Amino acid sequence: MNRFVLDKESILQAAENAIRRYGPCKTNLTDIAKALSVSHAAIYRYYADKADLLEAVTERWLARTFRSLDPIMRENARPEEKLRHYLQELCRTKRACAATDPEMFENYAVLSEGSSRALKEHLHHILNQMESIIQQGIHSKAFIDQDPRQLAISVFIATSRFHHPAFASEWQNPDIENRLDAVLNLILSGMEIRN
Amino acid sequence: MNRFVLDKESILQAAENAIRRYGPCKTNLTDIAKALSVSHAAIYRYYADKADLLEAVTERWLARTFRSLDPIMRENARPEEKLRHYLQELCRTKRACAATDPEMFENYAVLSEGSSRALKEHLHHILNQMESIIQQGIHSKAFIDQDPRQLAISVFIATSRFHHPAFASEWQNPDIENRLDAVLNLILSGMEIRN
Repeated sequence: MNRFVLDKESILQAAENAIRRYGPCKTNLTDIAKALSVSHAAIYRYYADKADLLEAVTERWLARTFRSLDPIMRENARPEEKLRHYLQELCRTKRACAATDPEMFENYAVLSEGSSRALKEHLHHILNQMESIIQQGIHSKAFIDQDPRQLAISVFIATSRFHHPAFASEWQNPDIENRLDAVLNLILSGMEIRN
Repeated sequence: MNRFVLDKESILQAAENAIRRYGPCKTNLTDIAKALSVSHAAIYRYYADKADLLEAVTERWLARTFRSLDPIMRENARPEEKLRHYLQELCRTKRACAATDPEMFENYAVLSEGSSRALKEHLHHILNQMESIIQQGIHSKAFIDQDPRQLAISVFIATSRFHHPAFASEWQNPDIENRLDAVLNLILSGMEIRN
């Protein structure tokens, strides 16, 4: 008796396994259907095409991978330390993925070149979290009183070298954390109200 | 009577013409030799191979293209304004190249993915100029007293999104200059001694 139930979760897990095995470009719906012992048609009832499925896989992977940022939001630290910690963790997580989960990272990097809904939502979520920390800093008079969303965008752009997949080849440089800290010192010092 | 003299300059100009015509990947020594009405062997007396020649073409192109930065070095402006102007001009020149000289820009972008001597020297030159401006700012007590080379590197890294060829596809965004200015405000404010 087959107790297996085909649902989005089982398809997404099979797709992630296939990506890890064949890489994002060579992964196809046939392999995924075969691994689940179902027909192509069964998968199409859930996802319109390969692009749609890879998008959903990435969305699930991003939510799981960047979960480590959430506890930072609840830290009882000064906003300037919290923002530093948040960016260090964001960049550390990206480096760890590129090194230890290369196929899923490649899948994410390929999507980042196009206009992916999952990546837009991920970026939106990251910017929301940064904006919230900056807002706290403005409130506590630690940060200059400027539009917190615009500041979050500038901070995100200025740290691109440490989190954008186009620079993944540089992340094995043993000096990378010092470089990030130097850039963070500059940016945070630019935002802080100094007495 | 043929008055044409084959020298490095004529080979480099023919190579640049070929790159503009065929793109950097499809350009080969045969086309360049044909355009100069000389043999392959004649070119090999000057350049070891295609990679060596493309490197020399890029070196010459970089020197010519970024010449517009030199007058800024002689400007009689406050160091903070000079550094802002320098970075605006650096990024403006990159954007202009990507838009109006796409084949030569692609040649440069391809080299930037490897370890090109010409690009290392170009980067070294840019960092030297930025360091010199920052040194002036430290001297005049406009900038914080930190290692000017390390500051120059941090400023260069933090503005990567606006000058690194990996992001060229974003440079047509009409908001790009405002985005750069917002990042420059943050960085310069981080370097300035505020009273």
